[in-house]
Amino acid sequence: MTSETLHFEAPRGMRDFYPEDMDVRNAIFAAWTRAARQFGFAQYDACVVESLDLLKRKSGEEIIDQIYAFQDKSGRELALRPEMTPTLARLIAARQGGLTFPLKWFALAQCFRYERMSRGRKREHYQWNLDIVGEPSLAAEAEVLACALHALSLLGLEANDARVHFSNRALLADLLLKFNIPAAHHPATFLALDKRGKIPDEEITKLLKTAGLDDSHLESVFKITGIQSLDQAQAVLEGTPASLLATRTLTALMADYGLSDRIRFDIGVVRGLGYYTGIVFEAFDVDKKFRAIFGGGRYDRLLEDVGGKPLPAVGLGFGDVVIAELLADKGKPGDHRERLDMAIGFMEDSQQPIAVQIAQALRLTGKTVEGALHAEKPRHFFARVGKGGVRQALYLGPDDLARGSVRVKDLENRTETEIPLNVIRTPERASP
Amino acid sequence: MTSETLHFEAPRGMRDFYPEDMDVRNAIFAAWTRAARQFGFAQYDACVVESLDLLKRKSGEEIIDQIYAFQDKSGRELALRPEMTPTLARLIAARQGGLTFPLKWFALAQCFRYERMSRGRKREHYQWNLDIVGEPSLAAEAEVLACALHALSLLGLEANDARVHFSNRALLADLLLKFNIPAAHHPATFLALDKRGKIPDEEITKLLKTAGLDDSHLESVFKITGIQSLDQAQAVLEGTPASLLATRTLTALMADYGLSDRIRFDIGVVRGLGYYTGIVFEAFDVDKKFRAIFGGGRYDRLLEDVGGKPLPAVGLGFGDVVIAELLADKGKPGDHRERLDMAIGFMEDSQQPIAVQIAQALRLTGKTVEGALHAEKPRHFFARVGKGGVRQALYLGPDDLARGSVRVKDLENRTETEIPLNVIRTPERASP
Repeated sequence: MTSETLHFEAPRGMRDFYPEDMDVRNAIFAAWTRAARQFGFAQYDACVVESLDLLKRKSGEEIIDQIYAFQDKSGRELALRPEMTPTLARLIAARQGGLTFPLKWFALAQCFRYERMSRGRKREHYQWNLDIVGEPSLAAEAEVLACALHALSLLGLEANDARVHFSNRALLADLLLKFNIPAAHHPATFLALDKRGKIPDEEITKLLKTAGLDDSHLESVFKITGIQSLDQAQAVLEGTPASLLATRTLTALMADYGLSDRIRFDIGVVRGLGYYTGIVFEAFDVDKKFRAIFGGGRYDRLLEDVGGKPLPAVGLGFGDVVIAELLADKGKPGDHRERLDMAIGFMEDSQQPIAVQIAQALRLTGKTVEGALHAEKPRHFFARVGKGGVRQALYLGPDDLARGSVRVKDLENRTETEIPLNVIRTPERASP
Repeated sequence: MTSETLHFEAPRGMRDFYPEDMDVRNAIFAAWTRAARQFGFAQYDACVVESLDLLKRKSGEEIIDQIYAFQDKSGRELALRPEMTPTLARLIAARQGGLTFPLKWFALAQCFRYERMSRGRKREHYQWNLDIVGEPSLAAEAEVLACALHALSLLGLEANDARVHFSNRALLADLLLKFNIPAAHHPATFLALDKRGKIPDEEITKLLKTAGLDDSHLESVFKITGIQSLDQAQAVLEGTPASLLATRTLTALMADYGLSDRIRFDIGVVRGLGYYTGIVFEAFDVDKKFRAIFGGGRYDRLLEDVGGKPLPAVGLGFGDVVIAELLADKGKPGDHRERLDMAIGFMEDSQQPIAVQIAQALRLTGKTVEGALHAEKPRHFFARVGKGGVRQALYLGPDDLARGSVRVKDLENRTETEIPLNVIRTPERASP
């Protein structure tokens, strides 16, 4: 590989978006934005460069090793954010007195992680972040889930395509305590259990032992992970703690949204981030062919942890990579190009001024118009614009100008309309 | 300052966007995107992380000192791009055989520069990049200028608000040669002249001397910068070189767009980037209160320089910071919040399920609906939703459910409509 060809590639793990790639990305961003707006979420953003200190303290344990960190020319410790939640907590903590809660915010945030490159994993992606801050009830979990499922619907994915698996870390903690596994071991246990299905169970066992669990603990942990339903969990617990009630409440709330068939209890959902405190969830395609489409949960202590006043919070992250793979697999979202209203071409330089005037006059009425930049043969013009991206075409030759009218071709119906030139007012004439 | 409060701030020079800031940014992005689409430009993007090598070789001289550079964990030399043009050249060079030219592309690209912090200058901004690649004629310059001016119109800025100043580096080179200043000194001369008005003329003189110009050269340079019109330039040149003809052609083309009154020849426009080869331009507010709104020009050798086949190109960059300052100064773009169709509140927990069902049913018909997450007093609900962000409000109490109908309040007309509950179909009932 010569040094010249090297320049043509994006840095390893980073993505280029040619126009056809942008069409897919824009379709996904549009569904995210539309769903968020339909549920009354307000958009926020922050720079992708964040202070390393904030990220180190508040990101998930696993993430810290994967942070792109660097110093600026003043020696400031900076980083490309691996996730948006610590930044969200910072923004809210900074204005906690002036904001109205519960607050519903969303962001379309680029996030970076230095990961080993495997199975087409990228080192950056865009993530839809959807958060409700200041609402302690399960209504917050139900609302973010309903909104994310609405975004899937807008992309054409319904109940037979994707499903949410959910659990509750508080319930899992109650189960662990029931088997005498002390709370001090819970964070490491959560982290290990989050890896089930991604690494062999023997590796999970090793991780749990490293975390300080003995053989009887291990047996209990794997008994807990075998629980299939909330009724089974209740039988094990011999009672109905708040954590179990909350988990049942979420099911009831989702029924009000008409989404009961889209969620299922799954004790195996734990999530890798340290800050979750209650309900946790992940959405998958029904065949589980792909990694999680979105994931999130309740993180009631994060605001406090960044130095703000305590505030309950629920959020989710929904990346653009897995959903794009899933949509491609399902043959969706299909052709999302925005078609142009008109393309204008001309045969000779002498028709260029009138071509420009017509194009500009149409644009001033709100139309989208592609104007040729140089003279071309009609064959070349119609071949270029007849590929489905343009509704109407107008090709100017010397005869048209002599006749004082132009022929507008409808490229969909293959019809032709003759329009007098003086009807298409030029911008100079349009001004009073 | 304690370490806790530090966490609430974005890193120095980086911006946070609270929802009210996003409204302004979204209005600017929407105008850029709309104008580009109306002129038939296709959107592209690339990761903000670029290879340092590409940027070092192809960015403007002045920029290189300001690059945020870092290494990834494999020792790769990376950087946050200071501008998009080298990346554009890379993308095109990589697929030069498969693309159709002239190609019209745009991007909304975040760019970073480590600058001394003065007068509120930021270290990152978003930049609308608009480029035409593969068109040698002046039609390319005219098209990008007309498109950028259209974006200004969409933001409410017309002829009495902002204006394009343009010149031609090839014409400036012809003038320098006419005064026996050899071509080898031109790049440094261009860079020095670009700083006029930003630093004192004595500093410019020093820069020119450092570049190798002698006293007679200096006198000539300042004579050239005193040229007020194309006619004066022609008189000095005692002829009509191609560079002068091209500059006149641009004026004629802009008249076809109906935009003659928006551009003026200004020998002082040079631009700081090394790669420009022909027409260069900058747009300013008419009072020149602010820095340049957008700037750009022709760069016919960049594709070659990154290792591609030669292709002529014209482009511009239009940042989000100056335009936002100018819009704020003019009291524009005003209130760009997207108002919600409806807000729904309820008095007691027992009305929550029906509130959720109504909200969800309305969303499935395409409406934007804010649903309360917990019971609240009517006074609190109407105070919260009556701030202008919501069109209609629906507040549910026990009486409404008993009566079987709800009252929808129009918050604009202050009218009220009674709607039977069974008319608002729930999502469960809506499915066949």
